[in-house]
Amino acid sequence: MHFTSERVFDDGVVEREFTLGEIPGILWTPASAPAPLILICPPPLGLGKVYSRLAGRARYYAAEYGFASATLELPGSGDRPRWAAADRARADLRRAMEAGEPVSGEIVDALILPLVEKAVPEWQAALDDLLALPEIGGPVGYEGGIISIGVRLAVVEPRIAAAGLFAGSLVPAAVFEEARQVTIPLHVLLQWDDEGNPRQAALDLFDAFGSEEKTLHANMGGHTGVPPHELDAGARFFARHLK
Amino acid sequence: MHFTSERVFDDGVVEREFTLGEIPGILWTPASAPAPLILICPPPLGLGKVYSRLAGRARYYAAEYGFASATLELPGSGDRPRWAAADRARADLRRAMEAGEPVSGEIVDALILPLVEKAVPEWQAALDDLLALPEIGGPVGYEGGIISIGVRLAVVEPRIAAAGLFAGSLVPAAVFEEARQVTIPLHVLLQWDDEGNPRQAALDLFDAFGSEEKTLHANMGGHTGVPPHELDAGARFFARHLK
Repeated sequence: MHFTSERVFDDGVVEREFTLGEIPGILWTPASAPAPLILICPPPLGLGKVYSRLAGRARYYAAEYGFASATLELPGSGDRPRWAAADRARADLRRAMEAGEPVSGEIVDALILPLVEKAVPEWQAALDDLLALPEIGGPVGYEGGIISIGVRLAVVEPRIAAAGLFAGSLVPAAVFEEARQVTIPLHVLLQWDDEGNPRQAALDLFDAFGSEEKTLHANMGGHTGVPPHELDAGARFFARHLK
Repeated sequence: MHFTSERVFDDGVVEREFTLGEIPGILWTPASAPAPLILICPPPLGLGKVYSRLAGRARYYAAEYGFASATLELPGSGDRPRWAAADRARADLRRAMEAGEPVSGEIVDALILPLVEKAVPEWQAALDDLLALPEIGGPVGYEGGIISIGVRLAVVEPRIAAAGLFAGSLVPAAVFEEARQVTIPLHVLLQWDDEGNPRQAALDLFDAFGSEEKTLHANMGGHTGVPPHELDAGARFFARHLK
């Protein structure tokens, strides 16, 4: 992990860009150390496009709750190399959605499974380096964008103690089965009237999680309309579990 | 409204028992006045039996958020006169549940509709007197036990600005239809693994509410296992809407 820039905000929060091998990432740390860490998985749009959304969350977590946060560019996003199979799967998905057809399990598998396979070891490697920093004290929370990555990490990575997930659809059948093996506390967001995201599939996934402690927060406002108060609700969830 | 006792806690919260005609009630007020008011509808078990649960909520609201709270004995509960039709409906419900039979719409109607008809005007009369007190400044929130009373009050009582409801079943079809007319912000709790409370019926009711702003919090823990952190989540909901 190699730091490439540092920026200090007037509330004492420090933002540092880094690279992990070829992978760009950003780390936010609060004034107080050592801090528990939240891994913020971005949506697959490129960190540049979602920077302000991620930085807003991370700076809130740091200033209000004393959490550090880190994010990592996903495989195939931003300036990272794409791969042909992912491009084909994305094109198939677009065709199905434009035709108003149901998205087949084959398309979902082709789109998501290779991404999970590539991303999960990268987040684990980032965790190795992040937890070696004196500013980071653990335990670790995870939140974010692609629910299948969160499910896999929750199952295979014992250093993750709690996860906040966005109940999307496009979940491979294999990941749905993996969800039953998740046992850490979960905080799951669902947009009740999400056009592109069948509600029943999201409720079924919430039901499948094996965790004894899981909370579903469903709100109105469409796919991108998560209400602002959910930021603090999520932070309080982490505050209960990252001690 | 006639006050019959007063008790001052060391955090400045004042608890007063009162009667409204023949109906017993309790009012909690914070040290700061005038305060927004939350009507806490009790479960139909008698105020004596649920006092500590209600007082815990009310004192938290007062001490942490500066809200006043009031509760009122429900018709047919505690020492209030019972009526024959309600006793018959309760006996029918018990028989159906012990036999493992589905609870018919007739039983639900007989159990709930007269209770709603009797209780709602009482809560409105209490509101008249409570809002005349200098300690109470409005606006008013409602939370509580019997969801059908909350639905009716949310529809007919414009002084109620926001409601926190527990998504129970045993909801008459007529109340389900009324739910579509509710437009105030709602905070709805659902116990995901509630033995006596069919999940799909609760999800359908949440879906039916006409409110643009509605949030569902689903948790594990069975009917009586609402996690402690939901107390503060509910208080924050009211803090957003009772300004």
